[in-house]
Amino acid sequence: MASEKNVGLLITGGTVLCMDADLRTLENHSVAVDKGKILDIFPDGSAVYQARETLNAADCIVMPGLINAHTHLPMTYFRGLADDLPLQAWLNDYIWPLEAKLLDRDFIRASALHGAAEMIKNGITQIHDMYFDMPSIADACSQAGLRAIIGEAVIEARLSDPASRKALGTKVLEMRRRYWDDPLVDFDLAPHSLYACSQATLEQCAQVASEHGILSHTHLSETKNEVEQCLAQHGKKPVFYLSDLGLLALPAVYAHAIWVDEDEIALLAENPASIAVCTECNLKLASGILPLSSYLKHGVNVCLATDGVASNNNLDLLAELDVTAKLHKAINEDPAFLPAQQALGMATRNAAKALGISDKRGSLEVGKDADITVLDACCLNGQPLYNPYSHVVYALGARSVRDVVINGELVLRQGNLTKVDEAEIIASAKQYQTKIKAALH
Amino acid sequence: MASEKNVGLLITGGTVLCMDADLRTLENHSVAVDKGKILDIFPDGSAVYQARETLNAADCIVMPGLINAHTHLPMTYFRGLADDLPLQAWLNDYIWPLEAKLLDRDFIRASALHGAAEMIKNGITQIHDMYFDMPSIADACSQAGLRAIIGEAVIEARLSDPASRKALGTKVLEMRRRYWDDPLVDFDLAPHSLYACSQATLEQCAQVASEHGILSHTHLSETKNEVEQCLAQHGKKPVFYLSDLGLLALPAVYAHAIWVDEDEIALLAENPASIAVCTECNLKLASGILPLSSYLKHGVNVCLATDGVASNNNLDLLAELDVTAKLHKAINEDPAFLPAQQALGMATRNAAKALGISDKRGSLEVGKDADITVLDACCLNGQPLYNPYSHVVYALGARSVRDVVINGELVLRQGNLTKVDEAEIIASAKQYQTKIKAALH
Repeated sequence: MASEKNVGLLITGGTVLCMDADLRTLENHSVAVDKGKILDIFPDGSAVYQARETLNAADCIVMPGLINAHTHLPMTYFRGLADDLPLQAWLNDYIWPLEAKLLDRDFIRASALHGAAEMIKNGITQIHDMYFDMPSIADACSQAGLRAIIGEAVIEARLSDPASRKALGTKVLEMRRRYWDDPLVDFDLAPHSLYACSQATLEQCAQVASEHGILSHTHLSETKNEVEQCLAQHGKKPVFYLSDLGLLALPAVYAHAIWVDEDEIALLAENPASIAVCTECNLKLASGILPLSSYLKHGVNVCLATDGVASNNNLDLLAELDVTAKLHKAINEDPAFLPAQQALGMATRNAAKALGISDKRGSLEVGKDADITVLDACCLNGQPLYNPYSHVVYALGARSVRDVVINGELVLRQGNLTKVDEAEIIASAKQYQTKIKAALH
Repeated sequence: MASEKNVGLLITGGTVLCMDADLRTLENHSVAVDKGKILDIFPDGSAVYQARETLNAADCIVMPGLINAHTHLPMTYFRGLADDLPLQAWLNDYIWPLEAKLLDRDFIRASALHGAAEMIKNGITQIHDMYFDMPSIADACSQAGLRAIIGEAVIEARLSDPASRKALGTKVLEMRRRYWDDPLVDFDLAPHSLYACSQATLEQCAQVASEHGILSHTHLSETKNEVEQCLAQHGKKPVFYLSDLGLLALPAVYAHAIWVDEDEIALLAENPASIAVCTECNLKLASGILPLSSYLKHGVNVCLATDGVASNNNLDLLAELDVTAKLHKAINEDPAFLPAQQALGMATRNAAKALGISDKRGSLEVGKDADITVLDACCLNGQPLYNPYSHVVYALGARSVRDVVINGELVLRQGNLTKVDEAEIIASAKQYQTKIKAALH
């Protein structure tokens, strides 16, 4: 008999979807977690561990935590505030005026905490966020136990002088130093979009990102209008403009990227660029449907995102998976397009690649960070079960998210958040709702 | 002080979405239910009832039960069995051979019971089903407490002789007599499709439906291929063929109806025809996206459906609402297209109209049947709440379905089914899964 090793957490008897390079599917396997890492993945009964906590995952699907590659966490309090509007009207008439009136540290912290808790309940273990006030977002994520890479949105109107433009890089490095001991949060550079930043600012971003090896995060070609504007102002298509700026050569996540042509996609494929596909938001704002099959054909790395809740109006990445996989079958007139397993890859391993963290996350492998989502398939909508990938994408839904482990810590246990008080978060949302309603008038 | 009246059920303090002709939204209102009907809807505190059971619906949305206008309940056991295939391959290579091998009364009854329970958990109070063996489906729905209009699929291959064709009407009437005392189930005529029935059979259906005032239920123009086939065989487009057969003049629900042109839509609008929109199934099988805006422009009654779970792979009508509302904004390049309130109408009042039961269901009004769904918005994904319709369509999801009342009876209480044992249903699904897997090889 093997001697018993002590570990922090044992997840036993599940169907493990590794989402590793071989896309291994391991039935009746257990996962041993210790010191924030995956220590072992083994057939039930083949190894013996003494765990401080054991999760029985019989009838469950155990998979890498979902990674949400483009979010605006502090906008959670704007959920469903103004629907059925085009992007620019929604921004100009509602979101931006409200932000100008209401945003302060407390608002951002509280709204971000709500969003972070909601992400976890939806099986999401890491987000890639862009907004204002990085420390408040970082503190909120850290409090809920959610991983995040956070970027301060760089918007020309907020850069008061050349010095503040110069300070862009310093700010990211300063944040990294400040949160050095926090394993959950990291920071990047977030030039908001080509239309919201001057050429000088974008060039400065490229220089800073290159100098310090910082990931960048940008909205790209979300509407036809912004593409036309880019052509008119810069005489070239957005991706070619990005190339001239020096940004395209650097690792970056581009959100939306709907209105791109084949030449632009080919150019993206030659660079360390990833696309964060925001299907539901793009449909809801009628922004359009991105050419996913072209991206895949050219080998561009595509991942998945909810965008901010205000334009969605949920943070349900499993629903994004479902809609994205189905929609693009119809668009491509091919029911075999984007099978469930490949779709799940977008929300796990591809997203980790996009964020430059493939060595640590995006798959369940020994030595990687223990960021794990457990879905309970022992429910009416989970039975019978012939193919676990199919169920993750098409059948189970967010209500099946039972447990979530982030950095080895159980942050959701049997559907209950362990690090924050859900009732308090809801009470805070109700208080802010009253303030926001008042500010609307 | 008013004297206290005794009632069966009181739902207090909710936001009531009546979905009546005036689309009234009543905050802090209560609904009194007695003898299967809605007895009163009143501002909290303005009336006094003594109820056998009271549901506190503070922070909840109280709305008409969802109506799923096109389903195949006994196919629930085929969930996720074979994905990523075109409709005809999926039917010919998987579904039909399995049906031939496996279908018997027990299978149909058990699989239908599973589906019925799942429908209720998703906030659905009535379905419109088409399959084989009407009594088994009726018994399953009755057992779970779900309302259903059930039609035996009329398929040429199953009609052995002219006598069986003649018996089509008799069968429906016989079922109606047999279940006369059951308020939950009713029956209609379900000529499967134009391609699966001969002209003589379809004409016989029209005659029977006309003679006895029976609703009919047919798959229409789901694929391009079947439209071409109709043109080749009958020299006319499907809707014109329907018209010649005499079917179009009669009340009917047509499922899918994707590949129709403007002339056909105009003709549908002149007749008592309703379209059951099956968005997720149509996307998943890459069948196509129906011209919803044309239907609305011509005033055709459109409702919503999940189709069978085997091609979806869930029975979540709230998800269909979300995807349908979002998708057609993008297709129409108009974010104001199909606002949430109008979308919800498709799954409630429009569906009741389609099924010919507008006088009894589809809205919350005094005197109507008490078919009610209560969604709990006191959850992370339900807060803040500015617009209840927006939350029903875009934010809450099926996990927020807390209580379901059908015919005045509480069939789902606090998320728990009251009339059937969920664990038993799941155990049965697992047993059949083994049989089905074996039959696949």
